[in-house]
Amino acid sequence: MPSLVRPSAERARLLISCADRPGVVATVTRLLFEHGANVVDSDQHTEPDDLRFFMRLEFDLPGLAERLGALEEAFAPVAERFGMQWRLIPAARVKRMALFVSKQDHCLQELLWLWKKGELMADIPLVVSNHPDAREVVAPFGIPLHHVPVTADTKAQAEAATLELMRAHQVDLVVLARYMQILSGDFIASFGGPIINIHHSFLPAFVGANPYAQAHSRGVKLIGATAHYVTAELDAGPIIEQDVHRVGHRDAVADLVRIGRRVERTVLARAVSWHLEDRVLPHGNKTVVFS
Amino acid sequence: MPSLVRPSAERARLLISCADRPGVVATVTRLLFEHGANVVDSDQHTEPDDLRFFMRLEFDLPGLAERLGALEEAFAPVAERFGMQWRLIPAARVKRMALFVSKQDHCLQELLWLWKKGELMADIPLVVSNHPDAREVVAPFGIPLHHVPVTADTKAQAEAATLELMRAHQVDLVVLARYMQILSGDFIASFGGPIINIHHSFLPAFVGANPYAQAHSRGVKLIGATAHYVTAELDAGPIIEQDVHRVGHRDAVADLVRIGRRVERTVLARAVSWHLEDRVLPHGNKTVVFS
Amino acid sequence: MPSLVRPSAERARLLISCADRPGVVATVTRLLFEHGANVVDSDQHTEPDDLRFFMRLEFDLPGLAERLGALEEAFAPVAERFGMQWRLIPAARVKRMALFVSKQDHCLQELLWLWKKGELMADIPLVVSNHPDAREVVAPFGIPLHHVPVTADTKAQAEAATLELMRAHQVDLVVLARYMQILSGDFIASFGGPIINIHHSFLPAFVGANPYAQAHSRGVKLIGATAHYVTAELDAGPIIEQDVHRVGHRDAVADLVRIGRRVERTVLARAVSWHLEDRVLPHGNKTVVFS
Amino acid sequence: MPSLVRPSAERARLLISCADRPGVVATVTRLLFEHGANVVDSDQHTEPDDLRFFMRLEFDLPGLAERLGALEEAFAPVAERFGMQWRLIPAARVKRMALFVSKQDHCLQELLWLWKKGELMADIPLVVSNHPDAREVVAPFGIPLHHVPVTADTKAQAEAATLELMRAHQVDLVVLARYMQILSGDFIASFGGPIINIHHSFLPAFVGANPYAQAHSRGVKLIGATAHYVTAELDAGPIIEQDVHRVGHRDAVADLVRIGRRVERTVLARAVSWHLEDRVLPHGNKTVVFS
Repeated sequence: MPSLVRPSAERARLLISCADRPGVVATVTRLLFEHGANVVDSDQHTEPDDLRFFMRLEFDLPGLAERLGALEEAFAPVAERFGMQWRLIPAARVKRMALFVSKQDHCLQELLWLWKKGELMADIPLVVSNHPDAREVVAPFGIPLHHVPVTADTKAQAEAATLELMRAHQVDLVVLARYMQILSGDFIASFGGPIINIHHSFLPAFVGANPYAQAHSRGVKLIGATAHYVTAELDAGPIIEQDVHRVGHRDAVADLVRIGRRVERTVLARAVSWHLEDRVLPHGNKTVVFS
Repeated sequence: MPSLVRPSAERARLLISCADRPGVVATVTRLLFEHGANVVDSDQHTEPDDLRFFMRLEFDLPGLAERLGALEEAFAPVAERFGMQWRLIPAARVKRMALFVSKQDHCLQELLWLWKKGELMADIPLVVSNHPDAREVVAPFGIPLHHVPVTADTKAQAEAATLELMRAHQVDLVVLARYMQILSGDFIASFGGPIINIHHSFLPAFVGANPYAQAHSRGVKLIGATAHYVTAELDAGPIIEQDVHRVGHRDAVADLVRIGRRVERTVLARAVSWHLEDRVLPHGNKTVVFS
Repeated sequence: MPSLVRPSAERARLLISCADRPGVVATVTRLLFEHGANVVDSDQHTEPDDLRFFMRLEFDLPGLAERLGALEEAFAPVAERFGMQWRLIPAARVKRMALFVSKQDHCLQELLWLWKKGELMADIPLVVSNHPDAREVVAPFGIPLHHVPVTADTKAQAEAATLELMRAHQVDLVVLARYMQILSGDFIASFGGPIINIHHSFLPAFVGANPYAQAHSRGVKLIGATAHYVTAELDAGPIIEQDVHRVGHRDAVADLVRIGRRVERTVLARAVSWHLEDRVLPHGNKTVVFS
Repeated sequence: MPSLVRPSAERARLLISCADRPGVVATVTRLLFEHGANVVDSDQHTEPDDLRFFMRLEFDLPGLAERLGALEEAFAPVAERFGMQWRLIPAARVKRMALFVSKQDHCLQELLWLWKKGELMADIPLVVSNHPDAREVVAPFGIPLHHVPVTADTKAQAEAATLELMRAHQVDLVVLARYMQILSGDFIASFGGPIINIHHSFLPAFVGANPYAQAHSRGVKLIGATAHYVTAELDAGPIIEQDVHRVGHRDAVADLVRIGRRVERTVLARAVSWHLEDRVLPHGNKTVVFS
């Protein structure tokens, strides 16, 4: 199922963050220009609290593959001078994304579907589930499903097996598409890459289990969903995207669950899509999103 | 400034709540029909958790003033039979509403403005403020402003003086339009009537002081406002209405404050308007809103 | 794939419209009560322009199947007296819905998916397409796809064949899930039942072909979708539901198409779901939606 | 009523549009850097249809007033080389805005209010109205109201008198805040500057008179408002901003008018605020909005 129209081999992205100083933009754009790059998109932001500067440039450079090394070499001293954190990423080097799921399959379905439509620029080498139910959803997309059951007793082994899968498939990004296991701090640290979770509430309201039941009990008039990077502290990582939907007294918990599904899949899809296009720059416990 | 087009003298509302039992609607509508009432609006809800039944009927009855007593007398045994809590309210008996404000005057301004346009069906005998600044806003509306300063030392006396004002002006409803003092449990109990507050966050997120600073610090992507009835527990009373607005990394705390003003005034205005039309029925710590 | 949890055999809906007259509600609810029905949901509306009264009641009646005849017989003289149009519908008699699709399959996919989740209360005996592409989408749901190609020359025969399919499968409702053929007035009249279409614009803006290109050319800041009943006049039938999504100068026509897909599938799903639950009452060229 | 906190005397904006060519950004940012400017905000866009490039830079330059001439002189040959249209605007040179109003004063009220809060960066030398009613709204803000009645017979003289007022008060921008007269092509041409209108529908739906009555008659489920630049063709100029609000069968035309007021004032306020900050760049019959 070769659904992905790969990005142009000439397209690259440059991500920068550094202390704000005059001349950064002029210097960077001059260097790209002198190397023959044509900037097609550019966005920047200076955080007023700590004067941290963020920039995302997207550019086309004919013969990128051969010239990337020279560009990086030329850019290194500039980055050094300005104290930059930076990444230069060929757009064609699409990320390898693993999807984790439990019983609720609506987020998984949405991501696979958008991926098939070419809206998510990623390779998906595998889906991991602690339940076998997702097989039916995954099958039509030609992606292997790895069933890794987890119990209180087997959690450590299950995480070790999962980590081994991540390494074997060279996974860059893990997406928890309603995966109902809490990943240990060890797993997060050992994997080392970004992990995106969808939490079914408007965080920081209703952290933890059963957020729709919590929301119903509090009598809120809007329910929400939050996509965030996973950190060792539960539901407390940097927020990438949130949205809400109106509810009312006629809506029982089951209705919140049903309405919430729509919000969850939309919010997670947006967050994943932005991450895959290198539009999300973490900044402490917050994110800069160049959407 | 006679801005209020008074509701028709023939219009009344009947609010009912009771345990759900067959025949309630048939019995009530039959009784109204037999008394010559014409139902113009009707809404009902049964809470699935506890099978509590709620109903709001709006009807026209020619000669209401003279016939209200007979109608109430006829209704009492029906209510008794079904174990109803009920209220029969002539629409023309508009509520007397006091507005409380501190320095931020945008909610006050919005309410006064809508009131002048005839969108809020209330009499406003007075505005109370712990700061003198609101005088300029209130003056063009011809409403007296009572300046009641509050300090840690004078809080008890200030509340006593305020209570006396409520009694003297026969106030039915207090609206805290960004009133930055926390009312004591004693005040709430002594006043006895409903008090609506606007909290500048999407509750239960960011309870307490400086919610916009809290929201900025957490990096949320939506900010909200919540209108709720005041109870002795801070920011924990029954929610009437909530709404949100999108924000992003470019928005500093001052921007959240500015954007939030729009949300606050809209949310508070909707909640107050529904309350004035007897559309909000409290149910434990939640509300049924027949909007 | 037996995904549908059938509604309770005791549940029924009563739909009424008539000239507004005192006593309608009392009479109807009394009759239901006397027959042992327990009303679980009720909504009503009087159109101020022509004083037309609309009502939807949902009730439970033990032994409904055996007692439906008696109830209808008892209701007929009441309906006669008030000049009512009315329908009494057992909820378990789910509608038979045919989905029509062309190349764009996102609306089809959404409806099938919600149907499988039990969110659309219908039987789907067949999908009709003028292209063979939908087969892959439809296959996992175990529903037969009928490929009926249409050209300018064969349109009449194609419509006749399609009509024959509708009759053979006893179809109650046709949903045009991005079906890019214009149905003839003859087809609409011969089928006789309701047909719901999703138009990819905020009608009445951008009637006809290529609405996203029209929207882009006009420079609008929101794009929308409209679900409506099909009439002989193109894109002019009663609107059931509409929604919009924000766009900006960065969005090319292809982006509008992509963003629009989300709006289209949400709007169509809501409209179809309301229709299936008998929540949509046409009134001239408008609809009353008891959602 | 000195409500306006003037922008810093060091802040300026540079607006550019030209055919997209490599090196534009590098050249411009280099030149600003060499003149000691510190870029604090930057946004750019290339229109894919015609490869037109748009850029907005905001920067601080100490001693701007004395150095502006030199900067313009240095920039002129660069602009010449790239075939740029460009404007260099000191932020402290706030625009002079005239508000036109008829009987409906909610948009006028909103703009004056935001202006007083410091959210609209403009001087408002006068309000023009063809009705005397606005006097009460305008008075507390200390702005002169010019009452210029218009009849079919006196339209030419009225427009001439209005034009004379614009000249006498050196007006940069006219905002039609529900001004119910159609300005002639002559007036538009003679005034020469931008004119922003609020149309009370989601254009291009419901062009012309009584859009809420049109919307009610068509049975739409959302009503909207559109802020656009005025051109000689009625309701057809470049759209700056639009928004919508949900309505239903319970809403009569009077409700649409009431709900619409909220949408109108929000949409117009956003559009005016963006224009005043030079965030709106017209492009043919569309706009690029760097919001």
